[in-house]
Amino acid sequence: MERIKPRTLSGFLELLPQKQAQMERMMDILRQTYAAYGFCPLDTPLIEDAQILLAKGGGETEKQIYRFTKGDNDLALRFDLTVPLAKYVALHYNDLSFPFRRFQIGKVYRGERAQRGRFREFYQADIDIIGDGKLDILNEAEIPAIIYQLFRSFGLERFQIRVNNRKLLNGFYAMLGLTERSGEIMRTVDKLDKIGPEKVGLILQEDCGLTQQQAEQILRFIAISGTNEQVLAALEGYRGQDAGFDQGLSELIAVTENLAAFGVPEKNFAVDLTIARGLDYYTGTVYETTLLDHPQIGSVCSGGRYDNLAGYYIDKPLPGVGISIGLTRLFYVLDEQGLLNPALPTAPADVLVLPMTQSPGPAIALAHQLRSAGLRVQLYGEQKKFKQKLSYADKLGVPYVVLLGEDELNAGVCSLKDMASGQQVSVTPQEAAAQIRAGLALRSGPVILES
Amino acid sequence: MERIKPRTLSGFLELLPQKQAQMERMMDILRQTYAAYGFCPLDTPLIEDAQILLAKGGGETEKQIYRFTKGDNDLALRFDLTVPLAKYVALHYNDLSFPFRRFQIGKVYRGERAQRGRFREFYQADIDIIGDGKLDILNEAEIPAIIYQLFRSFGLERFQIRVNNRKLLNGFYAMLGLTERSGEIMRTVDKLDKIGPEKVGLILQEDCGLTQQQAEQILRFIAISGTNEQVLAALEGYRGQDAGFDQGLSELIAVTENLAAFGVPEKNFAVDLTIARGLDYYTGTVYETTLLDHPQIGSVCSGGRYDNLAGYYIDKPLPGVGISIGLTRLFYVLDEQGLLNPALPTAPADVLVLPMTQSPGPAIALAHQLRSAGLRVQLYGEQKKFKQKLSYADKLGVPYVVLLGEDELNAGVCSLKDMASGQQVSVTPQEAAAQIRAGLALRSGPVILES
Repeated sequence: MERIKPRTLSGFLELLPQKQAQMERMMDILRQTYAAYGFCPLDTPLIEDAQILLAKGGGETEKQIYRFTKGDNDLALRFDLTVPLAKYVALHYNDLSFPFRRFQIGKVYRGERAQRGRFREFYQADIDIIGDGKLDILNEAEIPAIIYQLFRSFGLERFQIRVNNRKLLNGFYAMLGLTERSGEIMRTVDKLDKIGPEKVGLILQEDCGLTQQQAEQILRFIAISGTNEQVLAALEGYRGQDAGFDQGLSELIAVTENLAAFGVPEKNFAVDLTIARGLDYYTGTVYETTLLDHPQIGSVCSGGRYDNLAGYYIDKPLPGVGISIGLTRLFYVLDEQGLLNPALPTAPADVLVLPMTQSPGPAIALAHQLRSAGLRVQLYGEQKKFKQKLSYADKLGVPYVVLLGEDELNAGVCSLKDMASGQQVSVTPQEAAAQIRAGLALRSGPVILES
Repeated sequence: MERIKPRTLSGFLELLPQKQAQMERMMDILRQTYAAYGFCPLDTPLIEDAQILLAKGGGETEKQIYRFTKGDNDLALRFDLTVPLAKYVALHYNDLSFPFRRFQIGKVYRGERAQRGRFREFYQADIDIIGDGKLDILNEAEIPAIIYQLFRSFGLERFQIRVNNRKLLNGFYAMLGLTERSGEIMRTVDKLDKIGPEKVGLILQEDCGLTQQQAEQILRFIAISGTNEQVLAALEGYRGQDAGFDQGLSELIAVTENLAAFGVPEKNFAVDLTIARGLDYYTGTVYETTLLDHPQIGSVCSGGRYDNLAGYYIDKPLPGVGISIGLTRLFYVLDEQGLLNPALPTAPADVLVLPMTQSPGPAIALAHQLRSAGLRVQLYGEQKKFKQKLSYADKLGVPYVVLLGEDELNAGVCSLKDMASGQQVSVTPQEAAAQIRAGLALRSGPVILES
């Protein structure tokens, strides 16, 4: 037979079983957390009509997209989950109830140049809340609570949700007479972490054409820091000069004032005037989330408020607020830095049952009994040496092995071996199930390690 | 703004939220059941190198495949989960432990002519057990137990797992001197349910060129029926004439003899000599599963034993056994026939919290408290009339609404409204959580209705 060398395409992540188990655990936490806040799961096609996906058109997106024809159809693979959501909401507008809260964890495709940690196929994990015409500010205020709960469920404490407001920023630039250049300015300010305030000031003058005074005012503004209370108090000093600014400040206060009721500690939340988010799309609150001990990873969960989700498809104003996690990249970086807790079990089974009797019947029945007790049980029927069977359990990381020979069978017991300690005890099947459950309970812990 | 009419491509299923909730419930059961038997979850790219996907080449597959280029790459979307599994096992052979047991629930793509109930993008839900060189018959014997547990977990009782063995069939055809024509014969016998024995006999003679006597012997053979014990006893009568037949019969006995230990009732299992499965790929036990009250749906879970998973990619014999469920089609048909239990909750939240106080703080804290008690809670902050808020809960099917006004707040209680009965009670938050949990527990039931 002619053979073809197997390979997986560059830029496509394919995990070994033990890594996949870690990824699944993260996905479970995402699903559970999003569901706890009343978001419904959604699943949309990977392929859409190219014209629909590219309605907004232009730029990088068009170059990166996977586009092809099949029959007469001009097709494309989705490059994010937002455009398909916009299409979905426009198409099913009459069948949905608003606010419409959905989460989606799905693969998206971008034909970027493949490089380390960059993927052409990757998961995004998004939530969005879409209003019909209006959407109360309470929804924007709730987003940090969801982010907080999510990262706490991952096992983390040292992370910070950084929040700003685009109306406030645009209002501030308007005060300086710089409305026309606000996009440019935001993109420059966005580099603050990387290049520092001096360089930002220079670029603002040299590339964006600001006066020294304007640049200084901006640098002074984004340097406002302290507790949330202090920052908001400092911002009050600018009130009364621009209606947009005042509106943005009121929104920022509304998003901040109920943190305690939302269960979000002050230390995990910061009003941060340097956050702008690149996309023009956002019109109100914007969010970023950073791991305090790993700032080089950048924001791990970002999003914001927008006013017009689906204007390309429907003549209805559909404002919303959403956040997105680049799950594949996050997973890859966490793994690379050794931050995925290796102590959590990744084996596909809690216990491996080894038949040692003439007929496999009693071992089959025992496996069935253990499974009925809620355990994940693998029956191992291969004809191998005993040592090889144990080595199999060991390689998979299965924490317990149960042996059933004629002696045990006659005595109504089985032998339970704890693979970590090597200890072996003779117990009834009920006792075995109880001991395994107790042992598994001890193996809990954070999914992601702090450092 | 120029608008594009939103649409979803023909042949691509996109569910409304309530249907999606039903689909998710089926997927959860699939994942839990497969995991209970020690299968690890796997996730492989949707896109593969076209040469690799088409290694086997030819025929219908090549016509239906979504194939395209991106840069210099000749790419294709996977059309099943088996070929990517073969590639995965060949590629990662040295990193896997055998038997390798994996499950995968993923979308696959076939550009078939779109018609009712046929999909171009659909989910398959597969399990496979792959051995390295050898694979014990116990694995084949375990498959019916997994199918049984799965369909019981869906809530069904009236289904039958039908099992046959290809070695036995091939051996029988060899006895008749018809080895060369066994493929043709099997495909003809496969039509028995649709066209009846007489027509099968005619086709066997006219199209396959069998003598009348040969056709009669085949019809007599496939007419063997009765209890499993009776069928196996009748098959014993053919023993000793062909080594393959004898081997197949021994395997069939091994698959059947431990049913009770596996927890599979006799009534849900039948040795059925008419089952052959179209694919040449299968070499031993083959499986089909039918819903007894809905035979027109055809087999809802099929598979079998194969000897050579990955011969196109690796010089190692990798025998295996697997089953596949065409999940999207199954879901579609069940829904169409009204068999998805409408009594199960599909709302994205268990309770909707309505703030009725001046500040939303107390309602936010109450929502947080109910969520900490394990409930899925949606906070509703829109400025609407009271009636519209209740109507929103009603449309989503949210079973409980909690109202928190100044009076309740001062009394340390909240108002809990049961949307089904319309009853409203004043209770503490703890009591509310307990009552909601109790109410939800009453809403359990089968996912799929029997009829």
